[in-house]
Amino acid sequence: MSKSSLLITRIGELVTNAPDSRPGRFAAISDAALVIVGDRVAWTGPAARAPAADEVLDAGGRAVLPGFVDSHAHLVFAGDRSAEFAARMAGRRYAAGGIRTTVAATRAATDAELRAGLHSLAGEMLSQGTTTFECKSGYGLTTADEARSAALAAEVTPEVTYLGAHVVPAEYAADPAGYVELVCGPMLDACAPHCRWADVFCERGAFGEDEARAVLGAGLTRGLLPRIHASQLGPGPGIRLAVELGAASADHCTFLTDADVAALASSDTVATLLPGAEFSTRQPYPDARRLLDAGATVALATDCNPGTSFTTSMAFCVALGVRDLHMTTREAVWSATAGGARALRRPDVGHLAPGARADLIILNAPSHAHLAYRPGVPLIRAVYKNGRRCG
Amino acid sequence: MSKSSLLITRIGELVTNAPDSRPGRFAAISDAALVIVGDRVAWTGPAARAPAADEVLDAGGRAVLPGFVDSHAHLVFAGDRSAEFAARMAGRRYAAGGIRTTVAATRAATDAELRAGLHSLAGEMLSQGTTTFECKSGYGLTTADEARSAALAAEVTPEVTYLGAHVVPAEYAADPAGYVELVCGPMLDACAPHCRWADVFCERGAFGEDEARAVLGAGLTRGLLPRIHASQLGPGPGIRLAVELGAASADHCTFLTDADVAALASSDTVATLLPGAEFSTRQPYPDARRLLDAGATVALATDCNPGTSFTTSMAFCVALGVRDLHMTTREAVWSATAGGARALRRPDVGHLAPGARADLIILNAPSHAHLAYRPGVPLIRAVYKNGRRCG
Repeated sequence: MSKSSLLITRIGELVTNAPDSRPGRFAAISDAALVIVGDRVAWTGPAARAPAADEVLDAGGRAVLPGFVDSHAHLVFAGDRSAEFAARMAGRRYAAGGIRTTVAATRAATDAELRAGLHSLAGEMLSQGTTTFECKSGYGLTTADEARSAALAAEVTPEVTYLGAHVVPAEYAADPAGYVELVCGPMLDACAPHCRWADVFCERGAFGEDEARAVLGAGLTRGLLPRIHASQLGPGPGIRLAVELGAASADHCTFLTDADVAALASSDTVATLLPGAEFSTRQPYPDARRLLDAGATVALATDCNPGTSFTTSMAFCVALGVRDLHMTTREAVWSATAGGARALRRPDVGHLAPGARADLIILNAPSHAHLAYRPGVPLIRAVYKNGRRCG
Repeated sequence: MSKSSLLITRIGELVTNAPDSRPGRFAAISDAALVIVGDRVAWTGPAARAPAADEVLDAGGRAVLPGFVDSHAHLVFAGDRSAEFAARMAGRRYAAGGIRTTVAATRAATDAELRAGLHSLAGEMLSQGTTTFECKSGYGLTTADEARSAALAAEVTPEVTYLGAHVVPAEYAADPAGYVELVCGPMLDACAPHCRWADVFCERGAFGEDEARAVLGAGLTRGLLPRIHASQLGPGPGIRLAVELGAASADHCTFLTDADVAALASSDTVATLLPGAEFSTRQPYPDARRLLDAGATVALATDCNPGTSFTTSMAFCVALGVRDLHMTTREAVWSATAGGARALRRPDVGHLAPGARADLIILNAPSHAHLAYRPGVPLIRAVYKNGRRCG
């Protein structure tokens, strides 16, 4: 039986990001149409020249975009830190342990509790137009809790990241080297079967350069590709290390040296910016213009986590990208789609050229710019994943 | 036939803003219940002591809040200014006329076109939890176009504001006094039957103190209560005039003198802050702390309009209120509900004490703080207006 086809026509603006037309750049077609066959895009072009299909959907002049690709999220956790957030915003000290608060709640949670929270957030993402997302472990920090976090994450996405090196847990406070050994040994063995990526929080107070190199090197021996949390809270060795190791992405990039910017610009390592974190911690935003103007590849992602950025909204990150990171609307939308795809080395998503996975969103708006022009407004009218409507 | 009753129980946090408990302050009950009879709140209190009712809804630990009260919105217009927005964000000049661009498009639109846009935005507001909103004229600027704008607005809200004094239209550029005469005379006569409020954009480049006084004085003779756009772009006489005239609200309040703050703090005039405008124009945010610490009553509203703040999301304004205006989560939620109600002199909404209108929202979250803790995420699970579920 042949695959059925769907023609979406009368698209006001079809954001294709077609990689052959302007590599690394936003690309769009006005008054467009798109044909899906099975789970793939089969044709794009002017509506007037669209071929026939089994089914036709009239987009009524609305914009169609690639589904968002959220390349940085921490979704396996238990507990609520809204009181900590409210206290921080009010300028009050809060006697809580940050990440370790979530680690304690996550360890204490049942599999069913973790699964319920994870699936709820995954559903929230999909309904907001995120059709591909990464999900990290990192709130278990024991072999068993990291392994169950990674296994749960694998239920909702193929882009699972091993983040045993998130922080040193309290029980290893006196023996951080012992914890790194665990992360590079038995914990890695238990997690690797569920993961595609390895990540490390390379920052003062978390893991230093040698530790990060050891963790990512061990991951590589198990086939896990590297990515790094780098330069979120201050300048450090993370960016340099990411580029040296050929990491797919260096994430945060809030405090960069000139050498960091130059290294990113001359590499395939994506600079993934996470403005939700700066929004929710009232920190200075990363300088997207400096990176873009230097020629670096920039992605936008949510950093969804219960401590410092509890948003699943890529549209919100686009709005911040434009308003506070001084990206153009085109740059921000490219970064939230094709940029995220590069940060996950996923050539099949983030664009809508023929052959791409048919992951797309229809906006209740005539152009991509409305994602920033209409901040906070839920503009997602329909979501297609693998060619099927699912929201 | 007696009215049917609905018990909403297992409410994790019931934000009542009960005006008798802590006047002008956020108030909430944990593990609460609420009874609706007809279109009114009949009872609130601990879930364990809830009375019986005809129907029962289990809130499952979620938060229940008064519906948002958006006291400042411009919803009757035609045209799209996303390209102007994108150019402004990119730091490019854009050869368009600001408000006058929208005036031209609005004048050229059919009633049906204006109505479709208006009803779409009103629906968007309701689905995002805004159960009371104000709507201004101000993009017609002829007697006929202002009258039809006001009449259309009256289809969707009782809180209609006459804003003939938005800007001086191009055809009166050489005769601004003649335009003020029109606004105070025939245009007012045509609009007053549809309106409750009169407003004026009192700002350099729009209308000065004497003109504003004339417009609001004329409105009062027709029973229209005053409100003022004041000190958005620079300090001016607007705040002082608002307090002198007993205006319900002075809106924007971005550039305040110490005397302005003192005048607001010692009056019943609400300071309505519109951070969506600063977000979308990249201007400095108003200083909510200065106003709150001085004892002024603060409201948050969207300023929804196609030029400078095209958001309908009160949740987004709450998040900005917390992050960028340095309000606590309680202050921001109070300002977006009870504060807006004060700015519209509507004692029946913005709180959930017995006797209040049963306008409320159920969040997909356990507390009000999540509106800021989870920025950009659509958290509205259900909306009740006049006791009926409508979203």
